[in-house]
Amino acid sequence: MPELAAVSAFPSAALAARYAQVRQQTEAICRPLLPEDTVVQPIIDVSPPKWHLAHTTWFFETFILQEYQPGYTVHHPDYAFLFNSYYNSLGSRVNRADRGTLSRPALADVYAYRAAVDDAVRRLLQDRADELPAVFHEVFELGLQHEQQHQELLITDIKYILSTSPLAPSYFKEELGERIEKLPSTDFPAKTEDNHSSFPKASWLAVPGGVHTIGLQEDGFSFDNELPAHQVYVADFELQNRLVTNAEFLEFVEAGGYQNFRYWMGEGWDLAQREQWQAPLYWVPDAAGWQRFTMRGLQPLELNAPVTHLSFYEADAYAQWAGARLPTEAEWEIAARFFQPDAAEGNFQESNLFDTRPLPTDADPARCHQLLGDAWEWTYSAYHAYPGYARAAGALGEYNGKFMVNQLVLRGGSCATPASHIRLSYRNFFHADKRWQFTGLRLARARS
Amino acid sequence: MPELAAVSAFPSAALAARYAQVRQQTEAICRPLLPEDTVVQPIIDVSPPKWHLAHTTWFFETFILQEYQPGYTVHHPDYAFLFNSYYNSLGSRVNRADRGTLSRPALADVYAYRAAVDDAVRRLLQDRADELPAVFHEVFELGLQHEQQHQELLITDIKYILSTSPLAPSYFKEELGERIEKLPSTDFPAKTEDNHSSFPKASWLAVPGGVHTIGLQEDGFSFDNELPAHQVYVADFELQNRLVTNAEFLEFVEAGGYQNFRYWMGEGWDLAQREQWQAPLYWVPDAAGWQRFTMRGLQPLELNAPVTHLSFYEADAYAQWAGARLPTEAEWEIAARFFQPDAAEGNFQESNLFDTRPLPTDADPARCHQLLGDAWEWTYSAYHAYPGYARAAGALGEYNGKFMVNQLVLRGGSCATPASHIRLSYRNFFHADKRWQFTGLRLARARS
Amino acid sequence: MPELAAVSAFPSAALAARYAQVRQQTEAICRPLLPEDTVVQPIIDVSPPKWHLAHTTWFFETFILQEYQPGYTVHHPDYAFLFNSYYNSLGSRVNRADRGTLSRPALADVYAYRAAVDDAVRRLLQDRADELPAVFHEVFELGLQHEQQHQELLITDIKYILSTSPLAPSYFKEELGERIEKLPSTDFPAKTEDNHSSFPKASWLAVPGGVHTIGLQEDGFSFDNELPAHQVYVADFELQNRLVTNAEFLEFVEAGGYQNFRYWMGEGWDLAQREQWQAPLYWVPDAAGWQRFTMRGLQPLELNAPVTHLSFYEADAYAQWAGARLPTEAEWEIAARFFQPDAAEGNFQESNLFDTRPLPTDADPARCHQLLGDAWEWTYSAYHAYPGYARAAGALGEYNGKFMVNQLVLRGGSCATPASHIRLSYRNFFHADKRWQFTGLRLARARS
Amino acid sequence: MPELAAVSAFPSAALAARYAQVRQQTEAICRPLLPEDTVVQPIIDVSPPKWHLAHTTWFFETFILQEYQPGYTVHHPDYAFLFNSYYNSLGSRVNRADRGTLSRPALADVYAYRAAVDDAVRRLLQDRADELPAVFHEVFELGLQHEQQHQELLITDIKYILSTSPLAPSYFKEELGERIEKLPSTDFPAKTEDNHSSFPKASWLAVPGGVHTIGLQEDGFSFDNELPAHQVYVADFELQNRLVTNAEFLEFVEAGGYQNFRYWMGEGWDLAQREQWQAPLYWVPDAAGWQRFTMRGLQPLELNAPVTHLSFYEADAYAQWAGARLPTEAEWEIAARFFQPDAAEGNFQESNLFDTRPLPTDADPARCHQLLGDAWEWTYSAYHAYPGYARAAGALGEYNGKFMVNQLVLRGGSCATPASHIRLSYRNFFHADKRWQFTGLRLARARS
Repeated sequence: MPELAAVSAFPSAALAARYAQVRQQTEAICRPLLPEDTVVQPIIDVSPPKWHLAHTTWFFETFILQEYQPGYTVHHPDYAFLFNSYYNSLGSRVNRADRGTLSRPALADVYAYRAAVDDAVRRLLQDRADELPAVFHEVFELGLQHEQQHQELLITDIKYILSTSPLAPSYFKEELGERIEKLPSTDFPAKTEDNHSSFPKASWLAVPGGVHTIGLQEDGFSFDNELPAHQVYVADFELQNRLVTNAEFLEFVEAGGYQNFRYWMGEGWDLAQREQWQAPLYWVPDAAGWQRFTMRGLQPLELNAPVTHLSFYEADAYAQWAGARLPTEAEWEIAARFFQPDAAEGNFQESNLFDTRPLPTDADPARCHQLLGDAWEWTYSAYHAYPGYARAAGALGEYNGKFMVNQLVLRGGSCATPASHIRLSYRNFFHADKRWQFTGLRLARARS
Repeated sequence: MPELAAVSAFPSAALAARYAQVRQQTEAICRPLLPEDTVVQPIIDVSPPKWHLAHTTWFFETFILQEYQPGYTVHHPDYAFLFNSYYNSLGSRVNRADRGTLSRPALADVYAYRAAVDDAVRRLLQDRADELPAVFHEVFELGLQHEQQHQELLITDIKYILSTSPLAPSYFKEELGERIEKLPSTDFPAKTEDNHSSFPKASWLAVPGGVHTIGLQEDGFSFDNELPAHQVYVADFELQNRLVTNAEFLEFVEAGGYQNFRYWMGEGWDLAQREQWQAPLYWVPDAAGWQRFTMRGLQPLELNAPVTHLSFYEADAYAQWAGARLPTEAEWEIAARFFQPDAAEGNFQESNLFDTRPLPTDADPARCHQLLGDAWEWTYSAYHAYPGYARAAGALGEYNGKFMVNQLVLRGGSCATPASHIRLSYRNFFHADKRWQFTGLRLARARS
Repeated sequence: MPELAAVSAFPSAALAARYAQVRQQTEAICRPLLPEDTVVQPIIDVSPPKWHLAHTTWFFETFILQEYQPGYTVHHPDYAFLFNSYYNSLGSRVNRADRGTLSRPALADVYAYRAAVDDAVRRLLQDRADELPAVFHEVFELGLQHEQQHQELLITDIKYILSTSPLAPSYFKEELGERIEKLPSTDFPAKTEDNHSSFPKASWLAVPGGVHTIGLQEDGFSFDNELPAHQVYVADFELQNRLVTNAEFLEFVEAGGYQNFRYWMGEGWDLAQREQWQAPLYWVPDAAGWQRFTMRGLQPLELNAPVTHLSFYEADAYAQWAGARLPTEAEWEIAARFFQPDAAEGNFQESNLFDTRPLPTDADPARCHQLLGDAWEWTYSAYHAYPGYARAAGALGEYNGKFMVNQLVLRGGSCATPASHIRLSYRNFFHADKRWQFTGLRLARARS
Repeated sequence: MPELAAVSAFPSAALAARYAQVRQQTEAICRPLLPEDTVVQPIIDVSPPKWHLAHTTWFFETFILQEYQPGYTVHHPDYAFLFNSYYNSLGSRVNRADRGTLSRPALADVYAYRAAVDDAVRRLLQDRADELPAVFHEVFELGLQHEQQHQELLITDIKYILSTSPLAPSYFKEELGERIEKLPSTDFPAKTEDNHSSFPKASWLAVPGGVHTIGLQEDGFSFDNELPAHQVYVADFELQNRLVTNAEFLEFVEAGGYQNFRYWMGEGWDLAQREQWQAPLYWVPDAAGWQRFTMRGLQPLELNAPVTHLSFYEADAYAQWAGARLPTEAEWEIAARFFQPDAAEGNFQESNLFDTRPLPTDADPARCHQLLGDAWEWTYSAYHAYPGYARAAGALGEYNGKFMVNQLVLRGGSCATPASHIRLSYRNFFHADKRWQFTGLRLARARS
């Protein structure tokens, strides 16, 4: 369990309201889906939406209701087996690769499970608010943050699921699609050569080196992996003022970047050959060039929007080709603390677009943009424990600690991240080969 | 395409009625399902019900409407890619193992596809009945028989799909379940020791050897693999008057049959060890003994009902253990023609039970029972072409011929087979390891 | 254990001489090898020659010395684990796929093992000849026949092992190579167009159908799978008077036979695509056409010699393409008994060529050639037990019976088979995908 | 190619002498092997010794002779294909997993290859010493260092190869074995309880934190991955004065460390379960406790010697269990520079023991021991490029750079490392699951 001492006990009504908001948002994300969409698992990384809906509920049932509601009996005796994700402490569970073979319980049963647990949680908050200990508040907040993590996974998993059909279906109902098409042109500029040629080049911004402190230094919630705050040394370096765009990545593609091993890590090159990668995930060649599968179906490539759905290998190969490099996570956080991004500028889950947007052409080149809420930025840092980190006791000790090897850190949050879920110290992590998240990159280099 | 000369051209109205009946039966089988049940594919052998619904429709669209309806345009340009099963002649198709990853087209879209094709077929029969050539009638009948094959696969695939959930859901709505419970006790005797101990032992029936003719010798439809009728020599042999029961197979289990390699084919033994088989598929140990997963959920083992869901390996090992052997397919057909079973006695799909029933205790021991419509009987005959068989030209030449190696013949039809779909010459075939069909066995031995 | 009643007890000296001859021949086959050649296992089907040398010795140690030599202690306590092949009765053993990972025991230690066992067997024959029971003689003969089987496997495994090196080394020392080059030109005709164009076409020979007896009907040794002799019915048919040649198979290759699924069994087609087969195993394209890897290294394709190293799938596809079919094993044996081939005409292991030879151009077209000792002929018959077959008790009951499903019968022996090891009733068997034996085909068709 | 500016041009004779010494040492390591031992590849990580002998030779032929000897023709045209390891720049090559399938070229041919290349190199040094540019000297030294790396791999690969045989053969000829048994008892103390109970506990040594410089700061050769020297910040920490011993690790084993997921990284736990790990590689349970497979065959567990053949997962789990942690690579190097180990104390390849030795019981507890030449110490640092690192141009740019993700750094060298090959800045790297190197650990913790 994370170090959560900073979480103060919210008043019961506020807590209930926040709980309701988070839980409803999860269901809102699933609302456009057919029952058919909620059970399949096209690749092992993707979980069926039905599973996400149930697993987040199981979390509250297990860690809140079973712990703090005397006499609580579980909604269904088999659900722990079905909806435990990876907690060895809590017994055996359905093999991850088999999540997509289960048609039952039905989607309606899962919604009934959600309703029953929500009801019990509401009653708990109402009836026993005064008796609940501080640790309850910590775990409760963790449950909400956990559900927000699954909201982002829901979006990326739904995108992958819809993409496997040759029908390339849109997630958005028509009226929403229309709304999107009517967005102001600064958001979705016409995809013309003119527009693209006038799009400003990225600028380099200097960041002073030295011994800096990274990790959570603010009040409020964080995961345990952001702790403890600690000192690191970095040399002077420079960072680009925005994310790498589709147009820039397209140059790499057209320059034969996927055919030249010199830019690639060895394991990345072997994988790219084996899987015959020719471009980022979701790029589909057509007669005129490239289309992309998006939540709105197949769309022309938005040239000035940040490139996404890259593996680390592709992000790193691009940086090599561009004569630059990826930042380390320490550099990223030091820069982010230095530039103090305006969170309101971010393109979060709440925008309901679930895709990246171009930087406005009049954006100030001396400021650092798109640090929060556009695309997860691959760093060249392994996801390891910070010095002094210790796993918590109990089942929640498995939350983060056991993953702290063989993965890489990503920073900044994406267009599928809830705005209230991100922080400058937030550490996301994936294996180097993963591409189904909204993952992009920003170039760094040593101070010249 | 099969040799179908014997199919006479039905009058148009009769044809339309038969078409409607077969097509509606397919949908009736799927009616109890949730949309969630229709998309998953827990093992490669099982296809999602949604796929069966669409694939049988694609068959009529491709081989009937596109051939015989001038100016017909396909319902959807991507459906051929999605719903072709294995016809290389007809272009590429979705990888068989990936059928369970596709949530779209939606179930409702597939039903709309069925309705549109049904409508077009009806109009074709109405408008052009007089112009359609003899070969149309052959292919049309093949389409109906093909759909009946998929009706049986639907039942066994649905059973497997439901079985993967720890909830062990029942396929039957409650009123149907009640109806079943109210069936006369001869059909479903109380599972008591008394009842079982009074159940008659199997008797051996003699069949004279010599040169016999097997293969289709009657009028009416058959698949091409039943042709040509030809002579075979068999020595005198004996066959049991009924199928092996659950009680008999249980003796094998309890005698350590799954732990003793001496009874087993080598490849079967290795598989059984690797998969840790302890009993037939769907047998579930409980404190009191064994339960079975059935279409009515978990049920106590019906001791006197024919054992089903055996691989060839298990059927053969049982026969070895019992000091007998499996019949060859020639023996089976010679015996069946000799005993002339009463088809009305069979336990076909139309019974709506989708499970085997015990032989009435007063059944005549001198007659041969359960030859048609109880369980597919594994034979010890490879599924090879009959002498003189030749593949048809065109795409339908792929219907049967290319499977004629590495599989074994099963005879007699099962409780999931439509009564109008079975014949004494009917040849079903599966690989030796398959267990998800209603497969059982009957013992044979040389005439002593 | 096979039914071996017909084996009469040889006098001790004759037995010892025959034992010595067989055992020495095994070592003669391995003599040209380097120690390095004797340990590798490039595919799971191929066993390291060192393993063959030891395993055949283990057979005599286990079934002869441990049974009949009182007080015998095994040569090495670990050798049973290392050199048991597939006898579950005799305990666990090295995983088949791992045979090629064992560098020890050294080749010299294996030869020492052979010498020690040979010595003990000689002493047993010398000292206890009069006391040994009839069953001893049966098992002893089985041991010799078993070793002859492994001689053939040694040759084909050595060929495969040498073929994996891009150096394409020759098995033959130079002086032997020279001897081969000096063979009369009827055996190895110049590969000129003239010669090939004058090579006679195959003729069709009629064989009368009816009820015939197949299976061992002569005195002497046979494996249990050749028993019991029994009656079968076949219709009139025709067989070609010789095996299909490389030139004929080349026509299939050049006609696009490997690119047209219509000729192929489905599983064969899928395999051929996956493995990118373009021609038989060991055919290597070069600028001028095709070379073949042979025991003499890379050689030009001998156009008139029988084609070998075909899978069943390729043999069957060729027959489909040629408008003919493969014979069944019953047809093959009936024909062979009808034509009574001259065994002296065969091209057996003793020729030391380990390759097929063209039929002399003046061979009588009315006689049936190459039935014995050229290439194993794929039949379209599953390798199943004959009616009345029963597995023997004890470990030797595993010799044949447990393989009697999922494989196909081959008949006639090859250029790697010892002449004394073949019979008209001999049944060899392999899975349909295997290509590393000297496997070819002869065309059959119904009597027109 | 590494940054090698510091390598001064040795005089020709000295260079030739050093070349001869390194090349001969490689062959000395292989001298006790049988030809059979030199071709097998029991796991993909292990290369056949014959391959190592040839590959190191190919390196000199490719990067020295072909570059600097005008008119040089390669020894054999196929050898580049056979003996290239992973240089994509230099064309296709034998699949790594198939190295163990090649029996040819023979071991003798590989030695002839070595002799021919050695001869050509000698002549080059003799004839053209004055004309060779500085870069020649850099690459030549790299070839020698590369060969030393393969000497260590040879030792660990040979150990693994010998271990796969149930015969547990010794690498050492008898006279060497005798020599070892006669070593002074301080090196190999009797394995008694008395002795072990008197073995001193490890002490903790403090290392001051702050901004330190790591990476090569001395003259002489280094690999490019040790460059550039750069600053890092670490907090105060403590390190144990010696490596963890077999006795200490045995406590973890006996405390159920392999059965408790709480100590383990998730991926490590899953692997350990799947592979059924119960102890380090080469530990073999016997009635009395544990034996270890060593280069001298099976031996009782040397309790006070450093534990080796651990994966990162096991090393890390041990540290978790012991309430400590692994050092980072920066901590390790800062500590090593702080303590300035006496290289003469190390237990290098030259000791010819190829196993760890206990620290003398009178070793000074205030000094830091076993930093160089005992066991590679797993660090909790990903193997990433140092800030400012850039891959060299040309084929040698593939030497290190493309591996810089997904692996972990190990420090200090082992009992199989040549003494002249190690440095305080040396970075070795393996994936977290690898166990076949002499890999151990030293505990670290924060300054309390």
